[in-house]
Amino acid sequence: MITHIEGGITAPAGFRAAGVHCGIKANPEKLDLALLVSDLPATAAAVFTTNLAVAPPVIVSRDHLHATRGHARAVVVNSGCANACTGDQGRQVAHLMAAETARAIDCDLEEVIVMSTGVIGVQLDPRTVTHGIIAATDVLSVDGHMRCAQAIMTTDPFPKERAVEVTTTRGTFRIGGICKGSGMIEPRMATMLGVLTCDAAVSPVLLQRVLSEVTEHTFNAITVDGECSTNDCVALLANGASGVTIGEADLPLFSDALYEVCKFLSTEIVRGGEGATKLVTVQVTGARSYDEAKQAARAIANSLLVKTAIHGGDPNWGRLVAVAGRAGVGFDLQAAAVRIGDVVLFEGGRPFDERAPQAAAYLQRKDITVGVDLGTGGTHEATMWTCDLSEEYVQINAEYRT
Amino acid sequence: MITHIEGGITAPAGFRAAGVHCGIKANPEKLDLALLVSDLPATAAAVFTTNLAVAPPVIVSRDHLHATRGHARAVVVNSGCANACTGDQGRQVAHLMAAETARAIDCDLEEVIVMSTGVIGVQLDPRTVTHGIIAATDVLSVDGHMRCAQAIMTTDPFPKERAVEVTTTRGTFRIGGICKGSGMIEPRMATMLGVLTCDAAVSPVLLQRVLSEVTEHTFNAITVDGECSTNDCVALLANGASGVTIGEADLPLFSDALYEVCKFLSTEIVRGGEGATKLVTVQVTGARSYDEAKQAARAIANSLLVKTAIHGGDPNWGRLVAVAGRAGVGFDLQAAAVRIGDVVLFEGGRPFDERAPQAAAYLQRKDITVGVDLGTGGTHEATMWTCDLSEEYVQINAEYRT
Repeated sequence: MITHIEGGITAPAGFRAAGVHCGIKANPEKLDLALLVSDLPATAAAVFTTNLAVAPPVIVSRDHLHATRGHARAVVVNSGCANACTGDQGRQVAHLMAAETARAIDCDLEEVIVMSTGVIGVQLDPRTVTHGIIAATDVLSVDGHMRCAQAIMTTDPFPKERAVEVTTTRGTFRIGGICKGSGMIEPRMATMLGVLTCDAAVSPVLLQRVLSEVTEHTFNAITVDGECSTNDCVALLANGASGVTIGEADLPLFSDALYEVCKFLSTEIVRGGEGATKLVTVQVTGARSYDEAKQAARAIANSLLVKTAIHGGDPNWGRLVAVAGRAGVGFDLQAAAVRIGDVVLFEGGRPFDERAPQAAAYLQRKDITVGVDLGTGGTHEATMWTCDLSEEYVQINAEYRT
Repeated sequence: MITHIEGGITAPAGFRAAGVHCGIKANPEKLDLALLVSDLPATAAAVFTTNLAVAPPVIVSRDHLHATRGHARAVVVNSGCANACTGDQGRQVAHLMAAETARAIDCDLEEVIVMSTGVIGVQLDPRTVTHGIIAATDVLSVDGHMRCAQAIMTTDPFPKERAVEVTTTRGTFRIGGICKGSGMIEPRMATMLGVLTCDAAVSPVLLQRVLSEVTEHTFNAITVDGECSTNDCVALLANGASGVTIGEADLPLFSDALYEVCKFLSTEIVRGGEGATKLVTVQVTGARSYDEAKQAARAIANSLLVKTAIHGGDPNWGRLVAVAGRAGVGFDLQAAAVRIGDVVLFEGGRPFDERAPQAAAYLQRKDITVGVDLGTGGTHEATMWTCDLSEEYVQINAEYRT
């Protein structure tokens, strides 16, 4: 059984967290350094950005997980500066963040995962971040989960945390998580970052397998503006403090519980997307393969014309057909179908435009589902979550940085 | 020698054109049916949308060009209704448009090219369009070029026409053209359509080869919103009225002249893009292949964050790096470079953010060039044209259709 509980990232036993302001952000009320520590040795898995302009903290974290073969004790995150496109100097600072954290909590350098989010192309001051790490270590606690969630925010309109308790015949364990993300980059950069904890014991191999799988259907199934950042990263630490060990037989339940946390967190990112007023679920069916279903869902979820139509409450199904037809996947116009909510507006090659008012009424809701069947006769499907595109998105991102 | 001349689509000898209002658009002052006729038999070539949700007029035109092996006498275009996603009934009306035009000007059915642009999923009234074809035939003239250009407009803020005269040792010939396009689809649909004329004699095979090549670097190198419509089409008729015949040796000059016309027309589409305030030239260099260069240029040209930054006059080079890194092409961060105008802001893995004010001043212009070198050591390059993304684009496309 999977139950939602309070406590966010420190709901699982044996984790402490903190969030402090150390001066990376100018406003002293904005937290800008987050620290998560596992009191026990923990296995760890992570998924990273596929962007080739990869930021130094991502390189450092990837190297560390490789060196420890999937173990970690701490995650240190700064916001307000992405430490991306910063060359040798940037790599030194990312390394320093791991070294200072290792010294502060007394673990190996390689047991620290480093994340950064904020402005690209600006150097991160090593003294500021060192101060922050020492200050955060001093206030680490089980109650620090919300400040930890706040300290990783950039343009996010609200902090995002979630925890669940999982009851099995062999005991109870918990999964918790935080994330941030709102658009892609500065001036109001908001790369996607996520930190997840679990107090079950899970082998590094299983942990990575489940995290990769769940991420594909949650964090990798959302879009705000189609931009993939230089710093995207999700890490999961499992410390075994609950006394429950996850084996192959428990994987479906473990995976379901992790999915619950990740789906909540990832859709919260979309709800808090820059300028967003609606959460839109895009369901594609009738595809020849899962990859094609996802490709079509992604094209629809990123379509400016679909996103603006939904913003305006316009049941403009022709735009959904047009995107599906250009998505580069198998598509048969005669067998395709489009629905907005439960209202079918196109089917059998024929429009049902007289149903538009019904669909328009549905589009007044905050949570919208649109469905496209590609009509190939295939049985594969995929879901993506996106938000509408408003004038406010343009305003946020057109503003001059300085 | 290639010289710009007046006269648009009827500047080449032996072509007449017309534009009328027949009632497809509600406003009687808006022209909605365009007709172009070649007085002599002409060879013809065309490029069509790659969208799988292809509209009936595109299917009819493709079939006709195939049946005649690249010949045509007329192009008939209606605006205000795309005749797309309209099933059997839509196919009958597209066929009827060709048949009525053939009867009116006395040519074979298959010698007529049909185009439609406007709202998707709405049926085109056969009587209205028949009236329009008869009325347009009555007023066909060499002076009708501008009304012809106006009659294919949807949300376009201005008509687009261009003509050049080409002087060769063997005589003088002319190329003319019109086009329309502003966004993708309704409520303010504006699929991309283009009609080109030439009074040189060119074999169908050569005509198609040059048109495809030139289109790749002009009409297929622009983007307003990343949406590919169900009706996109460019057709070129060559009637030989000038007495000049284009052979293999003349191809470079012919190609240059056609490029001049198509580049002008295609960048006019971008200048008139929905909500556009700037024309942005995206130059990608240092790619491993032309396809990769174009793919990267396309990704940059469609990036919401790049387009909003340019709208706001923000020299936000980090966004260009981030897009290049996620474009799915070869990219080396250490060797990559980014420039805005002539101002290099990133090179050798290092930011030059102190030059940002210089770049910000440059971004106040109406015509902007941004350059990204992918740093692969390859010598391939590509150019795309795009516009900025403004609040007005969202307003235009969020409005309810009815």
